[in-house]
Amino acid sequence: MKEVIIGFLGCGNVGGGVWNLLENFRKEIAHRNHLSIRVKKVLVRDVSKARSCAVPAELLTTNVEDVVSDPEISIVVEFMGGEQPATEYMLRALNAGKTVVTANKVALALNWHRLQAAAQEKNVGLYYEASVCGAIPIINVLQNSLQANRIGHMMGIINGTTNYILSRMYENGEDYKDVLGDAQRLGLAEPNPAADVEGLDAAYKLSIMASLAFHGRVPFPKVYTEGITRLTAMDISCGKEMGYVLKLLAIAKRDGNTVQVRVHPTFLPDSHPLSSVNGSFNAVYLQGHACQEMMLQGRGAGDMPTASAVVSDILRASTAEIHAHPTFSNTAEADPSLTFDDNWQCQYFLRISVEDRPGVLAKIAGWLAQENVSIAKMLQKGKADNDRVPLIIVTHAAPEKSLRKAIEAFDKDVCTVESVIRVEV
Amino acid sequence: MKEVIIGFLGCGNVGGGVWNLLENFRKEIAHRNHLSIRVKKVLVRDVSKARSCAVPAELLTTNVEDVVSDPEISIVVEFMGGEQPATEYMLRALNAGKTVVTANKVALALNWHRLQAAAQEKNVGLYYEASVCGAIPIINVLQNSLQANRIGHMMGIINGTTNYILSRMYENGEDYKDVLGDAQRLGLAEPNPAADVEGLDAAYKLSIMASLAFHGRVPFPKVYTEGITRLTAMDISCGKEMGYVLKLLAIAKRDGNTVQVRVHPTFLPDSHPLSSVNGSFNAVYLQGHACQEMMLQGRGAGDMPTASAVVSDILRASTAEIHAHPTFSNTAEADPSLTFDDNWQCQYFLRISVEDRPGVLAKIAGWLAQENVSIAKMLQKGKADNDRVPLIIVTHAAPEKSLRKAIEAFDKDVCTVESVIRVEV
Repeated sequence: MKEVIIGFLGCGNVGGGVWNLLENFRKEIAHRNHLSIRVKKVLVRDVSKARSCAVPAELLTTNVEDVVSDPEISIVVEFMGGEQPATEYMLRALNAGKTVVTANKVALALNWHRLQAAAQEKNVGLYYEASVCGAIPIINVLQNSLQANRIGHMMGIINGTTNYILSRMYENGEDYKDVLGDAQRLGLAEPNPAADVEGLDAAYKLSIMASLAFHGRVPFPKVYTEGITRLTAMDISCGKEMGYVLKLLAIAKRDGNTVQVRVHPTFLPDSHPLSSVNGSFNAVYLQGHACQEMMLQGRGAGDMPTASAVVSDILRASTAEIHAHPTFSNTAEADPSLTFDDNWQCQYFLRISVEDRPGVLAKIAGWLAQENVSIAKMLQKGKADNDRVPLIIVTHAAPEKSLRKAIEAFDKDVCTVESVIRVEV
Repeated sequence: MKEVIIGFLGCGNVGGGVWNLLENFRKEIAHRNHLSIRVKKVLVRDVSKARSCAVPAELLTTNVEDVVSDPEISIVVEFMGGEQPATEYMLRALNAGKTVVTANKVALALNWHRLQAAAQEKNVGLYYEASVCGAIPIINVLQNSLQANRIGHMMGIINGTTNYILSRMYENGEDYKDVLGDAQRLGLAEPNPAADVEGLDAAYKLSIMASLAFHGRVPFPKVYTEGITRLTAMDISCGKEMGYVLKLLAIAKRDGNTVQVRVHPTFLPDSHPLSSVNGSFNAVYLQGHACQEMMLQGRGAGDMPTASAVVSDILRASTAEIHAHPTFSNTAEADPSLTFDDNWQCQYFLRISVEDRPGVLAKIAGWLAQENVSIAKMLQKGKADNDRVPLIIVTHAAPEKSLRKAIEAFDKDVCTVESVIRVEV
């Protein structure tokens, strides 16, 4: 039996989950993997703080050197979150010849090139299954199951907080602010929810997933990001009436070497496999030229689902003879072979308040037609409060910039565009 | 760049798909994996037969020795299907020190212990991602992502032919025989459809998946198997009315060391993630104690999806330093640590023709109650042709044997049990 001695950087919910899983699964790990995993040191901010796991007090330390410089420790597992000091600590561990397992999407998305370079320099491993989508094994699948695929298309529900909020708005017609408040009370949203509701969390994850799917670095700043804060119950109910479900989607598409990466609220047909992924579940739907359509669905957060991914990385790192790394040129900048397209084509859902008089519809259709945007579906609702009538238009696929230009030409005296929401099929 | 020389056993649809994928993806494989894969010999029955892929004539051979005994060939890929001669040929390849990649569920399910023993004896690999569920990477995920999970529950739609038939019966109210005929004309069902519609295909796959999920050999004969041939449009429409969707499910459950493995038609609530997996799609839903609920969905058959899995195995086999094998005792017999339960608990859907007179319902409820089976839902339909009325009962969860015993006690003069279909939730 091989003994593997590891250290933790951080010991919050996920760290506690990993501790508990390693403890309670000790017998199975010994039997199945012929491994004994021993946690030697755990870096914390405050050794006296109460914890959800029973880490013995003598393992706790506030000195990072005890973890990253202990020659006995061969694997350092990082759960601190945030870019710094996590990145610097991981770099120190890698430079000291230790393999790093991380659950930290921010540090990885922003400093992957530095971390990978250090790992390759020292011939050690860098593992990050838990950095995206919790228990869903999307990293392993992209790296070890879909190698022979040209992935053209990847769409994911990769933020549980926003999916919980949007699922409730869809089911019950509730308002954004009310559901957000509930989610905060239930611990499903942070007191400062910006990273989730503004789409940043999803954008970090998409940067990692798209880089692996497209075999070229897709840096975080290249991801177009739009959050869910301006969505209304009215938009969702009008979409529902037309057979659409609203999701915060992370979308990566590739056509030749042109790629688009974007996170934004998106209407999907209610028959789409992603449409029935509700609550705090995550899912990634993708299409490869060989595998065709595939979807992975599961728990994208939570201490035990995330621990499941972390421990699978620890076990793989412990048995690997050679640590594999992505073979693309991993730099801070975007892969020079990729062209980033910000004028993507999709359909658009427009909610417009219009003057209720003859000829208005013809005008709107005309303004859209001037930019070659044509109308696929329309729905006119009863009178609204302000004497204007809500009109819903779903366009055929059109370039983003044409749609924006068409809308700019709308005469404000005739109609006001209340919402523009992208529609994917 | 490392050159890997491989040989094919068989060259039907899947073999042709693998040939085409290796050819068309040659540049990417060189770039991403630093590998050049060369097919040196292809065993076929008839060298003059027209093929869907452009294998050069000089590679074709009818002599298996050209593949399994060529010292240059390091990986043998098997697409022959069926237990023999595929098993013997794979054993010869393994004994000659070659790694084997197979898409053959029958040979693997029946002779896994012999194949693994030969591979371990010679320190070579045995890879079989393509043997179950086409492109869906369930083997990789069970082995390399869910190692730290106690899997309690796995339910799969793992046969595309039957899922196509049941999806159409559900959507359109069509009869089994009509849809089967269509499926045969479309090439979605074999001229002799027995292996699919009797559930054997799913049972082979479940034997493999359950062995990996439970870390103990679950031999094929231990899988209870019941097909879809006796299902009627009436059962499906009555179930639909009660909120159920009918699927041929492969089910594996574990409680302590007691396991149940079974393939049979199953009603699922229409809100279950598996209920919306339609047509020829496959999906596996599972629950682990750490990862919680997870579902993988994709193309379970077809030349390119299966080739996606085969080529991923070829690439992994080509780069592996050590070939991993399951660590459970892989014997012909069931793992002695597992107890197989054939008296599982589930809910039951009963379609009964009853005499339309007072007291009948009380009698039926009484017969069920005698075996402690209680009624969860009931639906009485209008008059049927034969003066009897269709009555649908869905029971609460009850042991299979109690339910069977209760039904035996039903008085044939009062009612006839037309269908018994298990219900999972």
